[in-house]
Amino acid sequence: MTDPLIDKPRICIIGTGLIGGSLALALKHAEFCGRITGAARTEATLIRALELGVIDDYDTDMQAAVADADIVVVCVPLCAMRAVFSLIEPALKTGAIVTDAGSAKQSVIRDAAETLGRHYTNFVAGHPIAGTERSGVQAAFKELYRQRRVILTPTDDTGPDALHRVGAMWRATGAEVETMSADHHDLVLAGTSHLPHMLAFGLVDCLNSLEDVNEIFRFAAGGFRDFTRIASSDPVMWRDICLSNRDQVMEMLDRFHTEMRAIYTAMESNDGERLQAIFERAKKARDQFCG
Amino acid sequence: MTDPLIDKPRICIIGTGLIGGSLALALKHAEFCGRITGAARTEATLIRALELGVIDDYDTDMQAAVADADIVVVCVPLCAMRAVFSLIEPALKTGAIVTDAGSAKQSVIRDAAETLGRHYTNFVAGHPIAGTERSGVQAAFKELYRQRRVILTPTDDTGPDALHRVGAMWRATGAEVETMSADHHDLVLAGTSHLPHMLAFGLVDCLNSLEDVNEIFRFAAGGFRDFTRIASSDPVMWRDICLSNRDQVMEMLDRFHTEMRAIYTAMESNDGERLQAIFERAKKARDQFCG
Repeated sequence: MTDPLIDKPRICIIGTGLIGGSLALALKHAEFCGRITGAARTEATLIRALELGVIDDYDTDMQAAVADADIVVVCVPLCAMRAVFSLIEPALKTGAIVTDAGSAKQSVIRDAAETLGRHYTNFVAGHPIAGTERSGVQAAFKELYRQRRVILTPTDDTGPDALHRVGAMWRATGAEVETMSADHHDLVLAGTSHLPHMLAFGLVDCLNSLEDVNEIFRFAAGGFRDFTRIASSDPVMWRDICLSNRDQVMEMLDRFHTEMRAIYTAMESNDGERLQAIFERAKKARDQFCG
Repeated sequence: MTDPLIDKPRICIIGTGLIGGSLALALKHAEFCGRITGAARTEATLIRALELGVIDDYDTDMQAAVADADIVVVCVPLCAMRAVFSLIEPALKTGAIVTDAGSAKQSVIRDAAETLGRHYTNFVAGHPIAGTERSGVQAAFKELYRQRRVILTPTDDTGPDALHRVGAMWRATGAEVETMSADHHDLVLAGTSHLPHMLAFGLVDCLNSLEDVNEIFRFAAGGFRDFTRIASSDPVMWRDICLSNRDQVMEMLDRFHTEMRAIYTAMESNDGERLQAIFERAKKARDQFCG
């Protein structure tokens, strides 16, 4: 008789919030793995994750938590990646795979290259393009990754077996897995995710500084709610994304500024034709790509 | 025996798109009015509105269309308001009420004051804060205004009876009716609606100009779809809003630019604390007002 758990990887998830917690729930549901061990900065989070059935056990000592793991998934804010990698590196077992779920990839790869030593060839940088404006383990749900994209950004150093196994893990959650270079990932995400978040945070903070702020938000319609939903996202996570993908986000902010100058100038000169042309191009692109 | 239709106003709706069409459907459903006559620039629109049961009859001659109406509701793009008012003014019957559904109010009041002559005291400027990114009579539905706000912006010249009757009409659709000054309306809407639309159009047009545009939109997640939904709005309508509420929208664009400069500068100087403070303020305001 064979024990079906024998070949199943033991997984350690560091950071059991929305992303890590949903991954754990999806992997359990798919019967992809053996026990899932949680690790996090605060024990209260881990107790909650255990109560919700997200993890099977936990250890507040990160080195102890990763000691038996075949796959370690690091789901912490980007600026905490390096410290976590440094801390766990001496405790990883031979052949252990390390992956992450950060929203910027070049910075994480730099961190991993500089801290993971002999384990670096088993490091696979990854980013699930999924999430909600909510955060924390109580927001986790097993369907979060279903039919969503997960981007893996291997480097020349990434071992093919590690890449294969991390891909298989994400596919087990129902996600579609794609690979691309880290710099391309960071540019694409700066445009479709990081810039929109900056604009949403900026818009809400800008209106919030107006005199009649209560009155102003009271008249916000459905479009405004949709538009600003992402401004309810986790401030620490987004601070870290800004700093980690700084060059690409700043380039997108520059491009956006140029675009808005064109709209402003057209208004200033009462140039209705030019305004209409901009709005028509935008509508056409939006209808085509998101319709 | 009394005929229940006798005291019900006859209504003429000029412009039977999403806004005018939904109003007609809601008023019919509430049995608020007698026959609803449609008028529009193109007969095809009116034939479609008739087929869909949105209007009871139509006339392509706007003067003929308004001749019997007790209430004329003008639902055309803002830059067409003046021409419509001028055209119908000689044909309005004594005591006829004229109202509109435009997204900016100071410009419409100016247009009405200069064109409606003796009917101007029966003019009530109005704005239903409702809509979707779709347009046209085929998108109309009778629930559009239910539990939504309609803002009326009477002036010192507005007759109290006209104001009362237009308020009653909108309340019959299920909307909550509020009054405020036109300049306050225009400022509030510039912030909560006009500026967000500019940002959404600007963002999509900006990304659309990038090299790998197909690739970029392919990785857009749910947040991006929500954020850019309003960029699918009608370009002509939004061109007119920009031009009609020009000063207030430009002021909001200026304020927004200052806000984004602060975010850019914080990134440039790696000032994580400042970024986090901005994002936290925004999240708190968004959760509080839209939560």
